[in-house]
Amino acid sequence: MIKVGIVGGTGYTGVELLRLLVQHSHVDVVCITSRSEAGNAVADMYPSLRHRVNLKFEAPSAGRLKECDVVFFATPHGVAQAMVSDLFGSDLTDAPRVIDISADFRIRDRATWEHWYGQSHASPQLIEHAVYGLPELNREKIKSARLVACPGCYPTAIILGLLPLLENSLVDTSHLIASAASGVSGAGRAAKVDNLLSEVSDSFKAYSVTGHRHLPEIEQTLNEVSPDKSLPQLTFVPHLLPIIRGMQATLFATLQPGQLNIGEMELQALYEQRYENEPCVDVLPAGTVPQTRTVKGANMCRLSVSRPQQRDTVVVLSVIDNLCKGASGQAIQCMNLMFGLEENSGIDQIAILP
Amino acid sequence: MIKVGIVGGTGYTGVELLRLLVQHSHVDVVCITSRSEAGNAVADMYPSLRHRVNLKFEAPSAGRLKECDVVFFATPHGVAQAMVSDLFGSDLTDAPRVIDISADFRIRDRATWEHWYGQSHASPQLIEHAVYGLPELNREKIKSARLVACPGCYPTAIILGLLPLLENSLVDTSHLIASAASGVSGAGRAAKVDNLLSEVSDSFKAYSVTGHRHLPEIEQTLNEVSPDKSLPQLTFVPHLLPIIRGMQATLFATLQPGQLNIGEMELQALYEQRYENEPCVDVLPAGTVPQTRTVKGANMCRLSVSRPQQRDTVVVLSVIDNLCKGASGQAIQCMNLMFGLEENSGIDQIAILP
Amino acid sequence: MIKVGIVGGTGYTGVELLRLLVQHSHVDVVCITSRSEAGNAVADMYPSLRHRVNLKFEAPSAGRLKECDVVFFATPHGVAQAMVSDLFGSDLTDAPRVIDISADFRIRDRATWEHWYGQSHASPQLIEHAVYGLPELNREKIKSARLVACPGCYPTAIILGLLPLLENSLVDTSHLIASAASGVSGAGRAAKVDNLLSEVSDSFKAYSVTGHRHLPEIEQTLNEVSPDKSLPQLTFVPHLLPIIRGMQATLFATLQPGQLNIGEMELQALYEQRYENEPCVDVLPAGTVPQTRTVKGANMCRLSVSRPQQRDTVVVLSVIDNLCKGASGQAIQCMNLMFGLEENSGIDQIAILP
Amino acid sequence: MIKVGIVGGTGYTGVELLRLLVQHSHVDVVCITSRSEAGNAVADMYPSLRHRVNLKFEAPSAGRLKECDVVFFATPHGVAQAMVSDLFGSDLTDAPRVIDISADFRIRDRATWEHWYGQSHASPQLIEHAVYGLPELNREKIKSARLVACPGCYPTAIILGLLPLLENSLVDTSHLIASAASGVSGAGRAAKVDNLLSEVSDSFKAYSVTGHRHLPEIEQTLNEVSPDKSLPQLTFVPHLLPIIRGMQATLFATLQPGQLNIGEMELQALYEQRYENEPCVDVLPAGTVPQTRTVKGANMCRLSVSRPQQRDTVVVLSVIDNLCKGASGQAIQCMNLMFGLEENSGIDQIAILP
Repeated sequence: MIKVGIVGGTGYTGVELLRLLVQHSHVDVVCITSRSEAGNAVADMYPSLRHRVNLKFEAPSAGRLKECDVVFFATPHGVAQAMVSDLFGSDLTDAPRVIDISADFRIRDRATWEHWYGQSHASPQLIEHAVYGLPELNREKIKSARLVACPGCYPTAIILGLLPLLENSLVDTSHLIASAASGVSGAGRAAKVDNLLSEVSDSFKAYSVTGHRHLPEIEQTLNEVSPDKSLPQLTFVPHLLPIIRGMQATLFATLQPGQLNIGEMELQALYEQRYENEPCVDVLPAGTVPQTRTVKGANMCRLSVSRPQQRDTVVVLSVIDNLCKGASGQAIQCMNLMFGLEENSGIDQIAILP
Repeated sequence: MIKVGIVGGTGYTGVELLRLLVQHSHVDVVCITSRSEAGNAVADMYPSLRHRVNLKFEAPSAGRLKECDVVFFATPHGVAQAMVSDLFGSDLTDAPRVIDISADFRIRDRATWEHWYGQSHASPQLIEHAVYGLPELNREKIKSARLVACPGCYPTAIILGLLPLLENSLVDTSHLIASAASGVSGAGRAAKVDNLLSEVSDSFKAYSVTGHRHLPEIEQTLNEVSPDKSLPQLTFVPHLLPIIRGMQATLFATLQPGQLNIGEMELQALYEQRYENEPCVDVLPAGTVPQTRTVKGANMCRLSVSRPQQRDTVVVLSVIDNLCKGASGQAIQCMNLMFGLEENSGIDQIAILP
Repeated sequence: MIKVGIVGGTGYTGVELLRLLVQHSHVDVVCITSRSEAGNAVADMYPSLRHRVNLKFEAPSAGRLKECDVVFFATPHGVAQAMVSDLFGSDLTDAPRVIDISADFRIRDRATWEHWYGQSHASPQLIEHAVYGLPELNREKIKSARLVACPGCYPTAIILGLLPLLENSLVDTSHLIASAASGVSGAGRAAKVDNLLSEVSDSFKAYSVTGHRHLPEIEQTLNEVSPDKSLPQLTFVPHLLPIIRGMQATLFATLQPGQLNIGEMELQALYEQRYENEPCVDVLPAGTVPQTRTVKGANMCRLSVSRPQQRDTVVVLSVIDNLCKGASGQAIQCMNLMFGLEENSGIDQIAILP
Repeated sequence: MIKVGIVGGTGYTGVELLRLLVQHSHVDVVCITSRSEAGNAVADMYPSLRHRVNLKFEAPSAGRLKECDVVFFATPHGVAQAMVSDLFGSDLTDAPRVIDISADFRIRDRATWEHWYGQSHASPQLIEHAVYGLPELNREKIKSARLVACPGCYPTAIILGLLPLLENSLVDTSHLIASAASGVSGAGRAAKVDNLLSEVSDSFKAYSVTGHRHLPEIEQTLNEVSPDKSLPQLTFVPHLLPIIRGMQATLFATLQPGQLNIGEMELQALYEQRYENEPCVDVLPAGTVPQTRTVKGANMCRLSVSRPQQRDTVVVLSVIDNLCKGASGQAIQCMNLMFGLEENSGIDQIAILP
């Protein structure tokens, strides 16, 4: 049994980790921390876990966490980078493996991180050791990583959607467009007026149009997968959906002038081939479109690709559950790889539908 | 492996059965029928099941169904009673076990059934063989039953909520009150204007105030559990919630004059004791209330009991997922009992929250 | 033109007042106060009011408010009672009329108020001058009132539903039951985790089962309307609906033994007669039930009455928009009476449906 | 008073027409037709109209409709074109003015209409007489029109969003992109499984990706407003929002190489100037974004424009209420123009928020 610790268990990624890990047959969650809730039973905060999780929240302690085989950080940005070297030493040798669901180690360029997150990085020496935890891209590196930086939810949906186009240099990377939408759980469990049901229910809006923090993360990865390292540019407009879970990215890319003869069927084949052996990506049949409800509670990305009106703009639709494949489920997918388990062990739940 | 057949798999109880049975380690679903969808892949209708269910819908055939160990009917009322004797003979001997999720065999009195459902009963000779599939009440009988009539969703929530009060003759059974509310999935997947999102979202209403078909079923069972067979009378007002899944019953009962000295703590103890060993009923701590979201996707009934203002009216709150503990999950709970499995085998999923 | 001031305009009752008053042809809103937002344009907070409301929030000032003909308090409890005598003197003579939407002056018995609200009353000398602002009950008194205490939302829906039964001594007042449900806007615009979309959407729960602050207000009024001053007792269980606006009370009352021969048609006639000339109460045809969506944005209470199964329990269904007839709309209805206008002037908007 | 007839009053555009027309001080609705509901009271179908609309649905009759000054068609496509010449003669002279909310007369090219709608046009001779009812574009023509073809909801939101860019030849019109989303009421009140709450609530999906019927209508209008008649090409992906009312278009356009020095402030000024005197278009302050809830129930389009990261892609956000400015409200805006009334007479309701 893998001994698991969770730092910051009171948020939505924390409770989603617990839902999945408790039902994972190779895992034993041994501690879960929260300064503010220390001493309180987890199941009192989340009654869905009654009789399944008997842990109490405890204040973070290096001793307790070092007993673990792996520690998940389900914390706001800034926390993992401040704690991880304190807890486990500055190079993580001999420490538990660390899987960080926050944004702390996603960006390779320290200055870029500090620009977008508005603070200095507390563990810059660890950035280069972090592996970007997108299994469909970095499977082998994840297996041996000591520190995994899990992708954000929007990056997961968008990168998986664009990957086949970019890897094959099919599209103009200077004018990529992502119109994406997320359920409100992506904004976390903090008490904010903006996320009250009375403010966001029965409505729809864009946000962070001038620049969302996931943008540099996405562009960094798109650049890495472009054969010509073309510094792709993405116009990324996120929207807020009046639902709890679910994310869709609607992606637009213009075919390169030399690629105009690629037909919709060939695009379809290309996507199916790229994701043929992926347990957590599903390319839908030609002519169908994904719905977020088909992945609710599931660690799955469903994709479709089309070329409307046979014009030169390709449209890719990509859906995930922002808390599952977009966060905690994908973190466990990484854990499974790191510990030599079946990749979708414990995260193969079927979506709840309807 | 238990070979399972499902008759009528296109509705919401059908897809919920599939979600649970596919993840059940002792079950093999071998056929699923639908006249209207015969020949179509199940996963085309419900993409959440892609790569997990490879079956196609087929027209119902006695031969195919007889190969099963158990056949679930996930059909509208009237269908099971019309098909079951045709398929399996008039006494079900040597036939697969039958678990009927519909209303066909819930009412013991044929005339009462015919009055409320407005048609003659097509298999009256089988009524007496049917066991009412509420494990918390009829566990032993279910184990040996050949035909199980699964309770309706409202009856499940209401009966589990009132059981301890009635079994102990604490309340006036002539004025029981149930104000209950159900998610829209309870109305099924039929194309009806009344269940369009634009009609029921962002709204709330009562329905069937003059008499809901679940009323005689509830009163029949309440009578059976009353030590004095007092013919309990329930005023039952169902409401429609603008959510997909979830059901709450808010129950009111007046303490018998001789029972006024029972305190809230004693009521609490009574409920905890009654459901102490029940895997699918959870009595919440005193002072807390259930929420339907804590059972979304879970085969669980959560209950609380209180005595507001120390007056003589007891209030019981009872929540279930109408499609799970209120239908398909409970049907599988019965199957587990019938085949000697752990009672909550395959139905111990933790609710999806948030 | 009536010069109107609003104290506490940032909450939902404030913006609802503005929506209605701006479209009221006899009103000129001259000032709106908010300490925290002083200096900011109202339309920046509520873009629905752009080009319609040019006011800025200002800190409350006696001078400015005294220029008004009427001042609405759309504040949390405790504020009006603390400010009103400071602003307008201890007996309100020569001051603007005051319409308080909060709970400060609803309860006649000071000790009861202090018990339920957990603080001492800051203007006890004004309590006796306050008129309970339910026009259907106190129309004449409202006309000449200097201080109107507007009813709470639950009291409005429940009292209007029970009035005909109690005024005619038809039911046992010792066991009245109200199972009621409110949209989340009733909880206000404060930043609370409990009211996040991710917490309350797609779910349903009861709350304040052990005692909601609207209970003493309801019982006080029910007592006043009972010919025998029988100290009615109500078991009141409020629930939270995953919608923004809308409230339903489902009411249960047992006919007195001597009234068992009253038929459903007679009950219907009784209700129609009681509310025959009321512009803001609509008794629905026999056999139909109300839906909250039919009053969304409207200053209207829709009611139905029935006697299920011809048993001795009467069921009344009562719906309002909690922000309109349950708060700001009703406050303007009172204002219209106080200033000799048509009672539904400016509040006769048709509900938005769908 | 303008005598108004409504053909096809049972759908959502019909009830929205009624809500607005009943509160319009210069209008008298004299008849409303529905074959299927003939003889039934309108208010029985839509209780929100009780005591406000005393009409009964009647079968369409030329005599009755000819008494009207204006007839609205709130029907599915195909109906107006089949009825209008029968009712009013083939050139509409001496007939009531006709305002068609359906798609029948929006497309100038008959073959294009027949291609996209899959049927022959029943009144091709009238197409050239139809004025496209977008007041912000065709105000003068609408005033004298005998037949107005009201724009679709998506076209309204998209065209108003792109107009200033195209009129000023700022962007590459060969790669325009519209990622848009509509509330479910846009799909009408027909009984379809796809629009059940249980199917579309708590989810999000694209639809009609390969080609939505509003595409040719949008491209036709964009072409007309382009100074160079450049045959603009739009990639248009509509999505379904789990809300009743509300539509957002998120628009992407690439600045022409020669226009790269236009700053965000200049774009803002351009939009403000274009819509300066428009009563039903609101350009939001720089740096803010629209929300659909700020136009719920209002005949208003709110817009914002930005240039993220100072790159060459302009992003325009445009929201409307699909039933109001996207359908019935805009139809009345046209009627006001045709009859010399204030343009926003009767359609100046403030949005319901929250």
